[in-house]
Amino acid sequence: MKKIDELKQIVGELQDLQAVLAVLDWDQQTFMPRGGAEERAAQTATVSRMEHEKFTAPALGELLQELQQEMNNRDPESDDYCLVKVMSREYNRKTRVPAELVAEFARATTIAQHEWEQAYHAADFARLRPHLEKIFALRRDYAACFAPYDHIYDPLLDEFEPGLKTADVMAIFNKVRPRQTALIHELGARPQLDDRCLHQSFDPQVQWDFGVKVATQMGYDWNRGRLDRALHPFTTTFGLGDVRITTKILPDHLTSGLFSTMHESGHALYEQGVARHLARTPLGTGASLAIHESQSRLWENMVGRSREFWQWAYPQLRQCFPTQLGTVPPETFYAAVNRVQPSCIRTEADEATYNMHIMLRLELEIAVLEQKITVADLPEIWRNKMEEYLGVVPTNDREGVLQDVHWSCGIIGYFPTYALGNMIAAQIWEKARTAIPDLRRQIGRGEFMPLREWLRDHLYRHGSKFEPQELVRRITGTTIDPDPYLNYLYDKYREIYY
Amino acid sequence: MKKIDELKQIVGELQDLQAVLAVLDWDQQTFMPRGGAEERAAQTATVSRMEHEKFTAPALGELLQELQQEMNNRDPESDDYCLVKVMSREYNRKTRVPAELVAEFARATTIAQHEWEQAYHAADFARLRPHLEKIFALRRDYAACFAPYDHIYDPLLDEFEPGLKTADVMAIFNKVRPRQTALIHELGARPQLDDRCLHQSFDPQVQWDFGVKVATQMGYDWNRGRLDRALHPFTTTFGLGDVRITTKILPDHLTSGLFSTMHESGHALYEQGVARHLARTPLGTGASLAIHESQSRLWENMVGRSREFWQWAYPQLRQCFPTQLGTVPPETFYAAVNRVQPSCIRTEADEATYNMHIMLRLELEIAVLEQKITVADLPEIWRNKMEEYLGVVPTNDREGVLQDVHWSCGIIGYFPTYALGNMIAAQIWEKARTAIPDLRRQIGRGEFMPLREWLRDHLYRHGSKFEPQELVRRITGTTIDPDPYLNYLYDKYREIYY
Repeated sequence: MKKIDELKQIVGELQDLQAVLAVLDWDQQTFMPRGGAEERAAQTATVSRMEHEKFTAPALGELLQELQQEMNNRDPESDDYCLVKVMSREYNRKTRVPAELVAEFARATTIAQHEWEQAYHAADFARLRPHLEKIFALRRDYAACFAPYDHIYDPLLDEFEPGLKTADVMAIFNKVRPRQTALIHELGARPQLDDRCLHQSFDPQVQWDFGVKVATQMGYDWNRGRLDRALHPFTTTFGLGDVRITTKILPDHLTSGLFSTMHESGHALYEQGVARHLARTPLGTGASLAIHESQSRLWENMVGRSREFWQWAYPQLRQCFPTQLGTVPPETFYAAVNRVQPSCIRTEADEATYNMHIMLRLELEIAVLEQKITVADLPEIWRNKMEEYLGVVPTNDREGVLQDVHWSCGIIGYFPTYALGNMIAAQIWEKARTAIPDLRRQIGRGEFMPLREWLRDHLYRHGSKFEPQELVRRITGTTIDPDPYLNYLYDKYREIYY
Repeated sequence: MKKIDELKQIVGELQDLQAVLAVLDWDQQTFMPRGGAEERAAQTATVSRMEHEKFTAPALGELLQELQQEMNNRDPESDDYCLVKVMSREYNRKTRVPAELVAEFARATTIAQHEWEQAYHAADFARLRPHLEKIFALRRDYAACFAPYDHIYDPLLDEFEPGLKTADVMAIFNKVRPRQTALIHELGARPQLDDRCLHQSFDPQVQWDFGVKVATQMGYDWNRGRLDRALHPFTTTFGLGDVRITTKILPDHLTSGLFSTMHESGHALYEQGVARHLARTPLGTGASLAIHESQSRLWENMVGRSREFWQWAYPQLRQCFPTQLGTVPPETFYAAVNRVQPSCIRTEADEATYNMHIMLRLELEIAVLEQKITVADLPEIWRNKMEEYLGVVPTNDREGVLQDVHWSCGIIGYFPTYALGNMIAAQIWEKARTAIPDLRRQIGRGEFMPLREWLRDHLYRHGSKFEPQELVRRITGTTIDPDPYLNYLYDKYREIYY
């Protein structure tokens, strides 16, 4: 057997096991009865361990080294080249960290997640503090396995955004911070928008059906996926033929569920659009979390919160809810879905304020890793920064430092991907508008296929063959750049607020 | 580590992998979109292969041999003793058969299932014949791996009913055949019952809700399971904390869906009732297919088709469907659900005729294995026996030899478990009625918990610690015996038909 085929066989089995883990997790989050939790944990642990053993087998390392030699004179854009590159990167990441550290981290985060739930409900940060201290210490140990590095945050960030450096992220956010803060202050001084029309009673089944209609119109392929309810909506991929989405409908908020469905459909269009011949390889999925988030945000915000989208959608939505919306003019509705309202909770933030929540978290997690501040300092610094960035102060730590579970799960280096996703979305959106001159009018007619096809051609089909910065450069001509997003925000909100 | 703990660790991981395969299969049969089929097949194959490799590792064989020594002076009813016994039996079964034969059988049955679909729709047995010939030949080769045996059917039967011998099964069926045929002839000469009240239009959601109500009343634990739709209803166990059932509702038949739900709930009560400390071991599940079927049939037939059950259920069902049932007297309804009607299709057979369908299949599959008849003879012998046993003749092979997929899947030795389940159900039912003198009145009041608790104490909790014959003897004092079933049928139908 040729070495590359040997690799593909191993890679296929690894993908199978990862897909199995995804199925177990999807079931757990959608349908599993409470009683299944204990045995499901054992099942997940066993498959994870087998996957890890298979992925870190020394024989695979040797095979990859030999293949790296072979690939030297190959086209760097070829599938084989990219497969060896991506597998070597992942093999290196997984084998550099001693098994004991992996196990200790798993134990610490399992305990911390449980403690977080208690601490969250009691708004009692002191209870979580020692666990977070442990987790940050273990993440420092993890980073040390990848020394030397330019910045201790680099190895953590690299898990989510291959090749991206902390210095790049800092430069981007330093550019964003003053302009976005200024926008928030500017809008704060304007008369505020009224979104009471969204806060009425709306039949969940009718909301659900409307979400299905929109996802279908976006081109979500129901032969290769399905929609279910979940407490925390997510998209999951069992293979290119089975990309499932979940959503959460609120009976007293009209657009929360719809935008959640559009957001997840955006993720799913990306996964469903990967070239079929990349199936059952690690190339057959989105390139990074930020790139993925760019696609969910593009569909949720650039499309879903646009004036043109509601030209098409509002008359139909009004037919679904004549009592609630019959007297609400389109303009009022459009303003309502774009209302800016600084608040303490990230997951409720609007487009104008969202990035500030991220910047705050990024600055704090880096400062703790650099040991410039301690975990004990977090609640107070959190409050101060919230006041500085958004002019609001959490009344307790549940609305502050305890609101996200990420750190308790050991997920450090992840938050920036949310904000980078917004920026990449705007860069790609700008490019798509140039490439499809009629785009806005198409959206106004509910014609989303030209946009989806353009995204498929320029982004989706590549899967994760290219690292995020390289991919953004291929599509837009530059690496990640916040200006298009800032311009998008200023243009959009000045038009609405003035 | 003690050797027995070493075994338990391996056993736990094997159970995890088997549970994962069950999750993959459940999802495939309930929710998986069409597009997921190809990648799901790869996932299932990879996990199956890993499970097989783990189960047949020579180190496990050595460990089991050492443990068998250790167990010599242990209590044969202890969990450890039973675990070593069951694992040794399975290890022996899996390692006796050469890998090439396993692979060839897998290939042949995959092709044959596909061919069966085509042949079934075209009612064209000639198309399937060569594939069935191959499968019967491969099953003969399989049996040869377990030589010497008393009968070539023994090793096949043993897969489903550990320890049961072909001679026992023949003796049982030889006793059943004349009495059950006589009953069918006797009832055929009586005025026939009218079941038109069941064949009306019934809202599927109302049917569904009624099934849920009955399953709940039976004591199905929704915290450790759930109900979904499936084309071919089944019960599946992901662990003692997650035992799921499925059902199929027909909009134009009232009780088809209800009895399907009760049947699967019966299976599920058994699994949910296994002692918790047997979890994550092969002892933590039903003892055999026949024992399992005895529990689904007991709840579906002995309870669900009893006069007392409908005393409790009919007034409520009538409230659900006042238009359809308002003028149908309880007596008419009770007769309708117990109508005897010889027909060609096994899955539609009533209690009085069901076993004859099984006997026919058993006689044919044994005769082919013994090479007393050929596969080519099957259609004609099938027709002759149908006429002899039930007085009906299939008009084509779709209604005859092609109706079941089992043989095309390579499942030979399985059919008798359906009929044995009926007999065991009646034996246990007779015992339960003696033990709970008030049982019939309890059922008439919808009080099923005393019955479930008695079954749990005497059967469910043991899991698969004991072989089926031993288990039946422990509960009823004798091994499998058809008389209670025949008495049950005669008593019941004479009361209804005279």
